[in-house]
Parts: sequence; C-alpha cells; structure tokens
Amino acid sequence: MFKMNYTKTLMTAAACSAVLAMPTMAADDKVYRLKLAETWPSNFPIFGDAPKNMANLAEKMSNGRLKITIDSKNKHKAPLGVFDMVRSGQYDMGHSASYYWKGKVPNTLYFTTMPFGMTAPEQYGWFYHGGGQELMDEVYGKYNLMSFPGGNTGNQMGGWFQKEINTLDDLKGLKMRIPGFAGEVLAKLGAKPTNIPAGELYTALERRTIDALEWVGPSLDLRMGFHKIAPYYYTGWHEPATELQFLINKKKYDKLPADLQQILKTAMRTAAYDMYIQSYHASGENWASMKTEFPNIQVKSFPANVINAMRTANDELLAEKAAADPLAKKILDSQSAYMSKSRAWTDISDKAYLNSLSK
Amino acid sequence: MFKMNYTKTLMTAAACSAVLAMPTMAADDKVYRLKLAETWPSNFPIFGDAPKNMANLAEKMSNGRLKITIDSKNKHKAPLGVFDMVRSGQYDMGHSASYYWKGKVPNTLYFTTMPFGMTAPEQYGWFYHGGGQELMDEVYGKYNLMSFPGGNTGNQMGGWFQKEINTLDDLKGLKMRIPGFAGEVLAKLGAKPTNIPAGELYTALERRTIDALEWVGPSLDLRMGFHKIAPYYYTGWHEPATELQFLINKKKYDKLPADLQQILKTAMRTAAYDMYIQSYHASGENWASMKTEFPNIQVKSFPANVINAMRTANDELLAEKAAADPLAKKILDSQSAYMSKSRAWTDISDKAYLNSLSK
Repeated sequence: MFKMNYTKTLMTAAACSAVLAMPTMAADDKVYRLKLAETWPSNFPIFGDAPKNMANLAEKMSNGRLKITIDSKNKHKAPLGVFDMVRSGQYDMGHSASYYWKGKVPNTLYFTTMPFGMTAPEQYGWFYHGGGQELMDEVYGKYNLMSFPGGNTGNQMGGWFQKEINTLDDLKGLKMRIPGFAGEVLAKLGAKPTNIPAGELYTALERRTIDALEWVGPSLDLRMGFHKIAPYYYTGWHEPATELQFLINKKKYDKLPADLQQILKTAMRTAAYDMYIQSYHASGENWASMKTEFPNIQVKSFPANVINAMRTANDELLAEKAAADPLAKKILDSQSAYMSKSRAWTDISDKAYLNSLSK
Repeated sequence: MFKMNYTKTLMTAAACSAVLAMPTMAADDKVYRLKLAETWPSNFPIFGDAPKNMANLAEKMSNGRLKITIDSKNKHKAPLGVFDMVRSGQYDMGHSASYYWKGKVPNTLYFTTMPFGMTAPEQYGWFYHGGGQELMDEVYGKYNLMSFPGGNTGNQMGGWFQKEINTLDDLKGLKMRIPGFAGEVLAKLGAKPTNIPAGELYTALERRTIDALEWVGPSLDLRMGFHKIAPYYYTGWHEPATELQFLINKKKYDKLPADLQQILKTAMRTAAYDMYIQSYHASGENWASMKTEFPNIQVKSFPANVINAMRTANDELLAEKAAADPLAKKILDSQSAYMSKSRAWTDISDKAYLNSLSK
C-alpha cells in the first residue's frame, strides 16, 4: 500500500469549484451514421455484446450525433467477408477476429492470440505500450483499414476430449475439431484437425466421429452442451488471450470530426476491456453451472512431454514464417521480447500469488 | 477458436453504407468545468496518469465542453482530505483510494483490495457484474458521493525484507512498514507495523531501523531504490489487485447534461482499465531493470505455514467486522461468493496455463 504522509488540514484558501457554464463554439451538429458488419450471428452472447456496447456508448456520448447500426451474419451472410466488406466501403466498420484473415493477409495472424503466447493483460500491454498497435497499423494500413482490440475471451480451454492424452502417441491420428494455426501445430504432431459445422459438433463428439474439439471455454461452451458427453476438459495452451477486433474503413474514419473520432476510439477501447471482464465473469458463472450439473467433469492439463512437443512444433512453424517474411519476423520478435519481460512479472505476481494459496 | 461456418459470397443487395450527415438538435454548447483533487503529488507516475488520461479523454470527446483540472497534493495540501473536500463540494471530483477512508467510513475498506482477495480481472468482474458497484453506491451514496474504479496497480509485492521469513517466529517483533488493514493482520501475528514518511523509508531500511517494508511493486518500487539495499523481494498476499478510485460529488454530477455524464463515466472507466495495463507494463519493464542492475535479488514466497497463519488472522479480523455491521457482512459475503466462482475459473484458465509452461 502506497500511502502519502499527510497533514489533515483542509484547504484554507478555498478553491472555487463550482460547475461553471460559459458559451463555446457551436459543435458540429450533423448526425453521422456508420454501418458495422459483425462475423457473429444475431444475439450471439459476449462476442456480439462488444459491438452493441460500443455503439451504445458512442451514441450516448455523442448525444446521438454518432449512430452505429450492426448487421449480424444473418443479415449480411458473409461472416468471413467482413475484411473485404469494410475495405471496400460496403460497410464502415466490422467486428471480427484478426486471425480469420490469415489466408488473405498472412500477418494478420499475430493480432488475436498465439499458442503459448501472452495472457490478456500481457497482450494489452503489448498492444498499448509495446508497439503492438503500431505493428497492427502497419499490417492493416495497406488495405485502407484500421484495426483495434475488440474484446478478449480470456484464456481458452484446450477442449473436450473423449480420452485422456498421456503421451505423444495419444495425439497420433486424434481427430479433433481445432481450426486455424493451432490445428497446424497439432497436425505436425500427427493429429488430424477437422472442421465441422458448429451445428453438427455436438453429435460428432457424442458419436465419436471426432475424438475431441475445442470451442472457447465455459463462457460459450455451456450452451453447446459438450460437458454432457465428454469426460475430460483440458486446460488451454493454444489461445491464451483471444482478442477480437474492431475494423474501420480509414477513409470513413477520416471524415468524422475529431470529437467523434475520439468518442469512437474510446468506445471501442472500453468495449474491448469490458468484454474481457464480461467473459471472465461468464466463465466463472458457467463453469460453476457445469460442475453443478455434471460433478464428474475431469479437468486435465496436458503432461509436460506433450506440452513441450507442442511448443517445439509451434516454434518451428513460427520460425518458418519469420524466415519467409521480414514483417512477420518483426512482429514475432516484438511479441517474444515483450512477453519475456511481462511474463517474468506475471510469474512473480499473479502466478506466485495464486500458487501460494494452494500450498 | 470459435469460427463461423460461412459462405464467402459477398453481399449482393449491397447495403448503402456512406457516412450520412443530417441536421439534429443543437447540442448544449456550454463549457462545464470540474476541479479534481488527487491524493498524489504532482507528476506521480501511473497513479497520477489515470486522472490525466481521464481528463484528456473527457475534453477531447466533449469537444472542449467538459474541462477537468487536476490539483495534486502539492496544491491542496490535503492528500487524505480528498473524501471531505469532494463531499463538501470544495472539489467536484477526487482521485484516491477507497481504503484510505476506513477510519471515517469503515465500509469503504472493501472497495480497493483485500488480503487474500480477488485478482484484477476477478475484482473488475465483481464490480461490474457481481454487485460490487451497487454496494459501493450504497456505501458512498450516504455522503453525496459517487465512487468508481480508478485504476488498478495489479498484484502488489509482499515487500522488501532484510531477512528471510521461514517460520511464524520470524514475524514476531518484525518491524515492518505496512500501513492499513494488512498491518493489522501482521500485528495479530506479532509483527510490529510502523509508519514512516516516504522520504525516510530508504534510510530506515538501509540502517535497519525497520526490517522490512512494502510499497507497491516494481512499477513504483524501482524509483525508491529498495532493491539496492534489501536482498529479499517477497511475493504478494495483502493487495492482490489494488483499485484506485474516482470520486464525484453527486450534486455536481447531476447538473451535467446526459451526454457529458456518459462521457465522464466512460472516460473514468477507460482510464481505470488503462492504468491496470500501464501498471502491468511498467512492472515488467522495471522488474527487468532491477534484475539487470542487481542480479542477486532473491524473489521469495512466504512458506505455507506463514501464509496459512496470515489467512487465519485475516479471516478472524473480517469475521469481527461482519459480526459488528450488517452492511460489512453483506459486502464480505458478496465478495466471498463471487471470488469462489471466479477463482475456480482462474485456477483452470490462467493459473493452469502458466503452470503448464513451467513443468
């Protein structure tokens, strides 16, 4: 506890602190309307709350001068077309996740989360104080786009498994729904990543069409019902701090007056942080519900040899990307240097604290 | 990774998404000026950046209609008079810490951090989704005050020690600068909490006038130089997530137009989160500097028997407070119930992740 040494004397030369009102220049009183396309379906919990929260804050703070309407994928039908639709100006804004665009712009991969990467506060530190935002500007600027943090899910669980993973052999041939870069890491170890439509996942896991799957964590897994049909819930390694994304068409942004630009940026920044806290909250609530309903869920962490093999595979894949692209190298080096400092702090602060309580 | 199943078809019925401008009602164009008293000295790092960040955001978002000036303790001379000065209307706002007012309003103790309490994301969850803000409203509302989260330091270190603490006997007679409630906990175990002016702490520790002290953590300890004169840096137990506070005189707040109220609330909320991330960042940076300069600093955690005795002492003190005051009981019960759910999530998410990497 920092505490000032003080004298309890109140101010003698009393400062006049009335709320004073005086005239100023007339504000721009036009209404600016922006259209946002989100990757999510209508009323998708948590992810979909972030743009709603943002739009609501922007409208209230601007006294109605900035109105943002949100189209879900049910409306625009192109959940993974958000990048293109905002780039072209068909939409002014988007809410999605940067790593969805890696097939189009490979270096977008690095602005969501990385296997064995930073935790949420570490990664926010990188974005806001460690050069992360500037690197994201560099990647997106070429496409007439601005990208900002759009809300964090927190640490994602490693997934639901029908059988225990005790050795590397258990990964061989493992049919697992795990899309994206993490799937590439597992494939290097002999697993068979598969993609299955969301609506068919429950049945696929129940009927053992797949041996395992990962989705998000308790915050969004509860409604999927996987805890009813798979005994093992593995802790996370592949998405330690999944940060969604607000996208803006830069030309549209540039046309806003300065106060509305600041309102928009602050609304996005707050909504992103707020989603992190909402996710944390929902995870605690939903995990309690799962355990109450199914007390036999077994939480497991992958054993050290499996974790180490995954890390090695991950490092090898990233080394290939760094060797092939100087900007990828620059981003990966920045993350690696930042993480080594911030993790050293995490280790002696939150980690040491949490571990000291379970001795 | 959550991923939508999608069709890559772009919208055919192209939505017209231009930035449209149309006239609206003229906004209230008065300039509202608020005066804020902070507990900190001028240009105090991190803590003092939170109200500056807040005021800057408010001014820009309001296009200059909301101007907040900040007086440091160098100006108002009453760092621990902030509660009274805002209550009386001498200042419109304050930036301080709720637990500073426990001698005046005992239940303010619970809105900063508690020994063995919640981590930062857990506690933000409690404030924003678990009833914490409403309880804070209940405590402060009686005094014509509104209080909001004002920035988190993250986990504070247990402090700098001249000797190791291996047994409970090592705490007996230990002269330690540790103010506030945590000092009461240690006193129950035979330690001698002392208060010493900030400017004399370095010399007191160097000359062994005190055996130990706690301040904040690397973010603010580095400039104090304690790492040069004490060999042991203990990990934290007493302030796992110290949240500072924005105070507002409610009558002054009520006079603001609705858009400026929302701007003010959002600016405070963002500045609070931002300070958490800034603290995290500075902790990583400064801890790296300390280790580079003094590679022999030994990081220690209190052994299990000491931690357990501290927890028991803490529980006993809190039970006394709960027994004496129904509102204290209500707050403590709320925190305890919330923490048990959110900690269960922390344990299988961030904690499990961090521990799996050090196997």
